[in-house]
Amino acid sequence: MATAKRASGRPREQRVDTSIAEAVHALIDERGYAGLTVDAVAAHAGVSTAAIYRRYATKQEMTFAVLLHDMREESPADTGTLRGDLRALTEQIAAQVRGSGAGTLPGLLADIRADPELRARFEATFLTVERGIITTLLDRAITRGELTRRPDVGLVQALLLGPLYAWLIVLDEDPAYAPELADLVAATATVALTANLLPDAAWSGTPNPESLT
Amino acid sequence: MATAKRASGRPREQRVDTSIAEAVHALIDERGYAGLTVDAVAAHAGVSTAAIYRRYATKQEMTFAVLLHDMREESPADTGTLRGDLRALTEQIAAQVRGSGAGTLPGLLADIRADPELRARFEATFLTVERGIITTLLDRAITRGELTRRPDVGLVQALLLGPLYAWLIVLDEDPAYAPELADLVAATATVALTANLLPDAAWSGTPNPESLT
Repeated sequence: MATAKRASGRPREQRVDTSIAEAVHALIDERGYAGLTVDAVAAHAGVSTAAIYRRYATKQEMTFAVLLHDMREESPADTGTLRGDLRALTEQIAAQVRGSGAGTLPGLLADIRADPELRARFEATFLTVERGIITTLLDRAITRGELTRRPDVGLVQALLLGPLYAWLIVLDEDPAYAPELADLVAATATVALTANLLPDAAWSGTPNPESLT
Repeated sequence: MATAKRASGRPREQRVDTSIAEAVHALIDERGYAGLTVDAVAAHAGVSTAAIYRRYATKQEMTFAVLLHDMREESPADTGTLRGDLRALTEQIAAQVRGSGAGTLPGLLADIRADPELRARFEATFLTVERGIITTLLDRAITRGELTRRPDVGLVQALLLGPLYAWLIVLDEDPAYAPELADLVAATATVALTANLLPDAAWSGTPNPESLT
């Protein structure tokens, strides 16, 4: 499977990487994702199109790499409660969606969906990482005694991601409200997890809950 | 603003409408939304491309009209509880997303986002109708005494739509699980509404709660 051919850490190459990333962001702001072209990125970044194609096979791969790089998630520090941990994560998700431009994600998600290779990379580099973080937060809650078992992680991911994506992407609502929505999503997910609202199948007690997702 | 130039109810024109709709569905199943063309729809439907362009200015408008037509929502019958009413609605949303093809919606949403006119029509013909239905369900809950006031309808919409869209579109998870997720979403939204989890701003008590959305 082709991966982005990123040059190793030579300073000149790193500057090119940075210029390309800045150009992608600037041009998406200016003309939207649909209007983004490799030629325009090359011109804006002051690099040759060959320099871009050495790194990325297509516009989609370039955009994916630049935006997903910015969307890297990390496990939030332990806040002492499941609700606090989930809020830290939903705030991170909300910041990501806003940072990558809510206007860009629909086009990028459509391209990811249409290309099996990008889809596999999205799954591996983004969704799997996020499920790993959610697993960490759930396991902390089990250690604290807030939960007795780990539920289906994919289901929890849908509860956490969904309302923020819907608010910012589908409904195209005010991004300024995203932090309050992040708080609400964390609160409702916590209730869903602790007040036994999840369907039995989500707690099927298989040795490896990941197999359910 | 251009609207789809639908011919009035002459039987021949209705047959053409039906043939176009069937062709759009068949070709999306066969080759995906990205591979859909007006030429292919005309050939499959046995109509001229002119007949399509008399109705729709673009491929996007045609697909939008066909899929959104199938996505028409109606207020579910009163089930006697807020949770039951919300579940009836989330089941309807899940069936919609599955019916229109989870593989189609990302591309269609991207095209809607990129075209201000389609965006305005999506807002008017779909999102506003759905918010009207949610308003009806919330008002029933107020009449029953389950809620004291009507909260921000857009926020409730995000809570209801979001996890189902995330599950089926972003996470690309098993559609067979959608009914259980619909039930979970209805349960968590009911708790969010009745257990005072919504932020104060969602209940700001303006005379017309629609103005918050």
